[in-house]
This record gives sequence, C-alpha cells and structure tokens, in this order.
Amino acid sequence: MKSYVVHQLLDRTLVTHPGQEIVAPAKRYTLEAFYGRVLRLAQGLKKLGLRKGMVAGVLDVNTHRFLELHYALSMLGVVIHTINFRLAPEQLVYSMVDAEDAWVFVSDTFLKVAEPIAGKFENWVVMSDIEDLSSPEAMNAYNYEAIIETGREDVPPEAGNVREADVFSIFYTTGTTGKPKGIRYRHKEITIGTLQLFHHLALHEGGARVSSSDVYMPLIPFFHIHAWGMAFFPLYLGAKLVLAGAATPERQVQLIEREGVTWLNMVPTQLHMLLETGKFGNVKILTGGSPFLSGLAKRAREAGVTYSLIYGGSDQLGTAISVVPEDVSRESDEAWEWLRVGMRPLPMVRVSLRDRDGNEVPRDGQSLGEVWVQSPWLPEGYYKRPEKTKEAYKDGWFKTGDIGMFYPNGLLYVADREGDAVKSGGEWIPTGTLEAVLSDNPAVALVAVIPVKDERWGQRPLAVVKPRGEVTEDDLRAFLLEKVSEGKIAKFWIPDRFVFVEEIPLTSAGKLNKKLLREQYTK
Amino acid sequence: MKSYVVHQLLDRTLVTHPGQEIVAPAKRYTLEAFYGRVLRLAQGLKKLGLRKGMVAGVLDVNTHRFLELHYALSMLGVVIHTINFRLAPEQLVYSMVDAEDAWVFVSDTFLKVAEPIAGKFENWVVMSDIEDLSSPEAMNAYNYEAIIETGREDVPPEAGNVREADVFSIFYTTGTTGKPKGIRYRHKEITIGTLQLFHHLALHEGGARVSSSDVYMPLIPFFHIHAWGMAFFPLYLGAKLVLAGAATPERQVQLIEREGVTWLNMVPTQLHMLLETGKFGNVKILTGGSPFLSGLAKRAREAGVTYSLIYGGSDQLGTAISVVPEDVSRESDEAWEWLRVGMRPLPMVRVSLRDRDGNEVPRDGQSLGEVWVQSPWLPEGYYKRPEKTKEAYKDGWFKTGDIGMFYPNGLLYVADREGDAVKSGGEWIPTGTLEAVLSDNPAVALVAVIPVKDERWGQRPLAVVKPRGEVTEDDLRAFLLEKVSEGKIAKFWIPDRFVFVEEIPLTSAGKLNKKLLREQYTK
Repeated sequence: MKSYVVHQLLDRTLVTHPGQEIVAPAKRYTLEAFYGRVLRLAQGLKKLGLRKGMVAGVLDVNTHRFLELHYALSMLGVVIHTINFRLAPEQLVYSMVDAEDAWVFVSDTFLKVAEPIAGKFENWVVMSDIEDLSSPEAMNAYNYEAIIETGREDVPPEAGNVREADVFSIFYTTGTTGKPKGIRYRHKEITIGTLQLFHHLALHEGGARVSSSDVYMPLIPFFHIHAWGMAFFPLYLGAKLVLAGAATPERQVQLIEREGVTWLNMVPTQLHMLLETGKFGNVKILTGGSPFLSGLAKRAREAGVTYSLIYGGSDQLGTAISVVPEDVSRESDEAWEWLRVGMRPLPMVRVSLRDRDGNEVPRDGQSLGEVWVQSPWLPEGYYKRPEKTKEAYKDGWFKTGDIGMFYPNGLLYVADREGDAVKSGGEWIPTGTLEAVLSDNPAVALVAVIPVKDERWGQRPLAVVKPRGEVTEDDLRAFLLEKVSEGKIAKFWIPDRFVFVEEIPLTSAGKLNKKLLREQYTK
Repeated sequence: MKSYVVHQLLDRTLVTHPGQEIVAPAKRYTLEAFYGRVLRLAQGLKKLGLRKGMVAGVLDVNTHRFLELHYALSMLGVVIHTINFRLAPEQLVYSMVDAEDAWVFVSDTFLKVAEPIAGKFENWVVMSDIEDLSSPEAMNAYNYEAIIETGREDVPPEAGNVREADVFSIFYTTGTTGKPKGIRYRHKEITIGTLQLFHHLALHEGGARVSSSDVYMPLIPFFHIHAWGMAFFPLYLGAKLVLAGAATPERQVQLIEREGVTWLNMVPTQLHMLLETGKFGNVKILTGGSPFLSGLAKRAREAGVTYSLIYGGSDQLGTAISVVPEDVSRESDEAWEWLRVGMRPLPMVRVSLRDRDGNEVPRDGQSLGEVWVQSPWLPEGYYKRPEKTKEAYKDGWFKTGDIGMFYPNGLLYVADREGDAVKSGGEWIPTGTLEAVLSDNPAVALVAVIPVKDERWGQRPLAVVKPRGEVTEDDLRAFLLEKVSEGKIAKFWIPDRFVFVEEIPLTSAGKLNKKLLREQYTK
C-alpha cells in the first residue's frame, strides 16, 4: 500500500517525469539519475551499518547531496537531523548530542565548523566535489561519493518497511533564550503538512501561486523545515528544481536567469539583498519569518516581483498564507497590501488568539493575543523536553508564543514573537508593527523597537533608529502621531525614547539582533 | 488533535468563512446556519439511538439535507451509505441489506421507490419541505425536520471520538454483471483522496482549474463518491456551493446564471443535455465516466466551456486528470485535444498497464493493457467479498478492469471497461476509441461497438449505428480505412459487421446500454 512516506513521493514522478531536471552547484541531472544515486547511496549506507531508528546529522547548504540524503535516509528508516548551521557553535553541538547523531554528513563548506568537534562524533562522511580533499584527521571520515560507488542501484528491502507513522526528521528551534529545542516529525505529518502549504498556494490567486509549470528555487535552507517543504514539493509534482548552494545574491540572480526560475522562497532580508543587485524581478516569491516591511514590498512590486506571506514555524509547520480578501479587487494596491500582511489559515488549520487568561480576544482589528494553533500536522511535542511540551500545549492547541491580531474581515496579522513584544500596562505593543510603520518614514533607514523596564507600565518601547539623513526625535514622534490619527497604531504604542545609532546589529540570519540590543539598552 | 475526519473539515471554515453561502432547492443559508442544523441533527439522531458503527442509508438527489447528513453522521461515527438510486430495484435493496442499513433516510422524491420496500427496513426518516406529507404507512417514519427541532445546537461528545481510521461511508459499484459490490472508505482515505483531486486540479493549468474564488455546483450525484468529493471540497475551502437537487437541464442553466456558478462536474451525457439548451457556456467543467467524444468537446469549447477529464471510480477514487503536455502551447487546438484524452496520474498515484500475464506493456501509443493502480487512498477491498477482493488486488496493485494506453509522452488514455472491450486474437480492441472515431463521421448520430463471438478470433467487433441521413456499411468501412492510414486506429479494429438502427438503448445514467445490445446481437 502506498502512503505518505517521503521516498514514496517519487514513485509517480519517476514514471511521469523521469527526465525532469534537478540543477545544483556543479551538478545537473535528471530525476531518474538522481534516483539512481539515491538507491546506491542507500545501499552504500546500509553496508556501513546505518539502520532504522538511527539519527544522521547533515551539515550543508542546499545541494544535490543534501537532497539525495533526504530520500536515501528515508528508505533506510534513518532519521535525518537537518543541522541548523546558523546556531552558535555551542548550541550546534548541543543539538547534535541531544538528537543523538550517530552519523554526521558534512560538506566541504562546513569542514571548518566541523573540525573542532570532530572528536565528539564517531562516524563522519565528507561531501565534496574535490576528489583528494583531506578531511581533518580526527574525523577519519568516509567519502560520500565513494559510498555511492559501493552501492547497488536497487531498492533496499528496508524501504518497504518504512511506515508513515515512523519518524522522518528532527530539527531544532533557534530559541533566542535557552537551549534549542528538538522537534521530531513523522513521515505523515512532514509530507502532508508541507505539501498542504503548496496546495493552498495553488488554490488561492495570491502572489506566489504555484503550478506544475513553475521552476522552483528555494533560498530557505533545508535545515529550516526542509526549505519550507521544497525538498519534497517539486519532486512530488514533477517540476524543475534549482538548488543554489552557497551562492551570493549576484550568483543567485544569474542562476534565476539561466535556469528560468519563476518561484522562490526567502526571508525579507534575502529579498532586500536580491533587489539590491538591481537585476532581480519578474518572479513569484513566498516570504515570511520576519516582518515584511511596506517599503520592501513596494520595491519588490516595482521590480515585477509578486509575493505571498507565510506564517509558520519549526514547531508547527505551515499555518497560514496571505490572501486578498474577497471584496478587494485583485489588481489594486490594497490587494498587494493585504498580501503583505493579511493571512488565512490553511485548510484544516484553526487559529485562535488568546489573552493571558486563555480567553479569545475580539476580532476587531485592534485586540492583540497570543497565537494558538490546531492542525493535523502538529508534532507530538519537544524531544526529551516534557516540561517544555507541557508549557506549549493546552487542550490540543499549540501556544506559539507569537502575538497576532485578527482584522475585522477575519484575516490574521502576526506581529511578533512574544519575547520581542512590549507589555505596557498589561497590553501588548507589537514591535514588528511599530517598526514597519516607522520604516515608512523616508528618514528611517532601519529601526528596532525593544522593551525597556518601566516602573509604572511594566515595560515601555524604546526605538533604536539608524537614520537616513537628518531626523530628530520630535520629527518621528510627530510622524507617529499622524499614524495614530490615521488609525494605524494606538497612541500608547509611541516609544518613550528614541536612540539614534550608526548601525543596528543583525543576526547571522539577517534579522534584527534584538537580544543584543536588549542587553545594550536595558541595563 | 485535529485530523482528516469529515466533520473536522469544517473547523477552519466555520471561523474563516461563517457567512459563505450554501444554496440548494428551496434553501439558502450560511455555512454557520448549516452547521447549526448539523449539530441539532446529530443531537436529534443520537436521541433516536444512532450509534457509532451503525450504517444509515440515504436515498436522495443532491440536496442540503443530504449534505447535512454527511457531517451529522460523521459526528456520531455512523457510516453513511449513499444509496445508488440508479440501481435496479432488486439491486438497490440488495445493497441496502448487504450494507446493513439500520436507518434509511429518504427524500420525498424517492418515496415511490421506497414504498414497496418499506417493510424490509425498520427505521425510516422522511426528508421533505412539505410539513403534512403522509409517508407510506409501513414506514412509520420519523420526520427529518422534526428530529432537527428536538436536537440541541451543541457538538455531541461522540464527535471527538471519531478517528480518521474509522469507516465514514459505504457505497456500491454499478457492476454491469453480477451483484453490486460494496466498498467502505475510512475518513482518512475519503478526505485525502477526494481533496487530492482538487489540489491537483489547482496545480495544473488545465480546463477545470479550481480556485478559492470559484462557485461550485456538482451535477454528479452524492452517491457517486460523494459527488466526486464535492460534498467536502467547497466546505473545506470556504467557497460557495450550489446544489441542484433534481433540476432539469433548463433549470440547471438558470441556477448557474442566477448563482454565478463557475465550476461544475458532470458526465458527458449531462454536458450534451446542457449544451442542447443553447444557454450553457462560459464555465469550467470536470467530466469523465464515459468516453468524451471530440464532437461534444468541440461544441463545448465553442460555447466557452473549458474542460478537464478525470479517470477514477468507486473502487479507486480519483486516479488521473487530463493535462496539456509541457511541449504543447496551452492555447492551441492540440492542447484542448490533450485535455480531452491525455491524463496524468495524481501525485502519489502510480498507474501501470499490464497484459494478460501481468507484464507491463510498452508506452508506445499503441499497446493496450489493463489499468493497474496504486495510491494512498485505495480501499481495503470489497465489503464481505473476500474472493472478489482477492481477484481485484495483486501485490498492492488494484486491477481496475479498464483498458488503457500510454502515449509516448507518458499521458494515459483510458479506453474501456474490460467487459466492454473486444478481445480479437488475444489483442484488445478498445470499443470506446472506435466509437469516438466513428462519431467523427457526420453521418453517424450515435454508435455502440460490442464484441460478438468469432470462431477464429475469439471475438470480433460489431458496430450498432444510429445514422444521421444516408450512410452505408461501405461508407463507414472506407471512413475507417482512412483513419487506419492516418494512424488513428489499427486495421484489425474495423468491425466485421455494421447494423443500422433507429435508436440505441441508453442506461438510466445516459450511457450506451451495451449489456442490452450484447444480449440482442450476440445470441
């Protein structure tokens, strides 16, 4: 019986689209050739002793080898740990120990990261195009290509024994506070959950509508929910997939042009960098993960980029995508503004916004609440962390820790991670929204709003501003008062203090480094 | 935990689209009001003793009450038997006895059908808008609306105990030979399987592409795989649903106009009748179930009807839809010809064509074979018929009994039920294809090709022709020889005999009644 098992996603397309291309750095092959390597890899790994239930970590950017591992490890029932290479070294090792990585696959790009920890893990496999690459001695590593050479091109019998209720993958949240938390997904939830996102994108006439004739390029790394599901969807559909490896924005633009890419996913920072090249446009993108500012959205549209917004995360998979409300003309500016901020839960997904007592907040376009989610693809909880799981779940709802609001038309706006929001007098101030509004001021190049302690209100907002030209605190205050009168923000959201700086620190993922800012300004 | 349970499909849309309309004969209400009635119905039925695992038969056309029963019975864990009202009376009763219908819901439309069998089943519920309708005495029937009045508008606790592995529905094949065979589907397979059809329709730019802004009207009756999934999809998506009840084609056309219907499903016969009204057009349709002749397709296009073809059935759910090959321009005549005949399996579905020894036939655009199918939503087999199940399944494949061919570009053409095909010298002759080719001759109004016994070849084809104007056997033979030279048919397909008749008998479903013709001409 066929079922929602990762390697079974290929069964149909191997018949219907055997010649479909997969393009990766220094690699271009057909789905059929890809599958041949997957089979030989699985057989080779089996010889080395990889068995069902073991965990194998992978430390790589988006390459064809990382893609192959998704399917070969699936066939053996080995759990793939997609290692988050943006974690601090200590947290990275913590995640590998916590996940119990019995094998670690590392590409030459990350050998320097791996070298200091080579002794901590027993079995290493190095992935490289360089034949005589010498890996660190402590690794005593196998060579990926050599393993493939040892394997027969034959479906391993283990592949038939993998069930949709078996665990497929584990990955770790990038919690800004505390240790990363592991989340394991079974084949059923990871396939149905990630594919549902694309089904919904196909059903809605949004900016990132997908179809079988698109050419797909994920700029979201595989470690983040398998590139938001892109490790599965194009191969399941039979569409062309382009992997960018560690390409710079300049090189990404060349790839898009050369391969005819029409659809990409990325965080807003990546969109910003691509637009900066001056050569990016006329594609569809899915974005999310941090606030999508109106200025950036406008520049994207001017470049011919159409977009949809996604809300989701490692611990919930896809939850909502932006849509144009039924009563708004699809071609209007307003439609594009809704696609930037207004989201509808995917089919089968329920979202509820709750106050501190767990009561639903009104859907009035003003009341903020914590985003609670129910869906058929929620994980069972945090790996080995029953206390964190208990904190995060209530009556079948996953409490995301994000702050959101429902517009009166029922669309969802997600403002902030709860840790980043400001609680002033018991009321939430969504800093992401405030930053987005401030960014509309032409004199603001970049802005971060953080909570600072306040005797009277508990917390009050502080705005850290990187100016563009001359601007004063009074100017910005007056600007925000205008926005209050336009009904865009509440008056009590206006920051008590504005600090002007030359640079605002960013995280390695290109997001505002609020943790650092809080340490700097709240002491 | 949310899961793929029928009544849970509403959880999201009740929040996102509570005001979405459902339109049915003499009824127009919102999704929210629909749900209120579903809850009260479930509570009312619970009071009457309906319990998990029981089976309830429903004898009705597509009405709002039939739709309500889908969800209310789901909440109680009662299996819905969607009774095929086109079965002969004896077979209809057989199916109800075989399914063990403990309760029977019958609309006033079918009271005359139910009356003679009233004594055979204990518990009847009559569904009608007529308040003082007197039902047959032997029924001692409950009144549907009265049951709703007794129920509280509250989710019954049973609803939370229904699992996706529980059986949701049972329905019967309309086997032309032997007794109807029952097929039971679990919540998981019926929801995922029917929804996948629509996901795939959304992903492909075919003629029946679906989106969240379409208005849906099923003309396929609920008893046929829940109107090919339309009992679920619009309510899961949040789109407007229009139910036509027992409307005539004239009335259907008015409904389409009045309600702004943009998407319908129907068999080719229904399309023919709608086009005959002269007022049907500018909609998208999904069709299938019998050969879709080129003349009909051409008339549809001229009326602004765009179409996709589906292949599937009661015992396999959706298997394939027609698509335009990648190398064909979407706007060309050729594209529309492919949408009429060339199908691609849905994602996750494998199709294999086999000869009598179970070997795969070449994908050469000529070789015919039996269609074997693998998919994640196949049923467990035929209800209470282990011997039939054993015959129909092999190594995880379902042997459909249909005859098909793969074009060299990998698209699937399904020609015939195996029972209807002609086996000549061990080779298949697909009668559906032959009929389609003959129909292209302007002198042929309607044609049926049936197998007759032949000493030398086993079977040979006989063509029963309803002519339009003057035409002779020699004319048709010459016409077919032309088609042979064009490579459209093989020479040995040309019928040995042509019989001219005034009328060709049709079944109640509007298909050629080949069973009757075989009895008439093969003795």
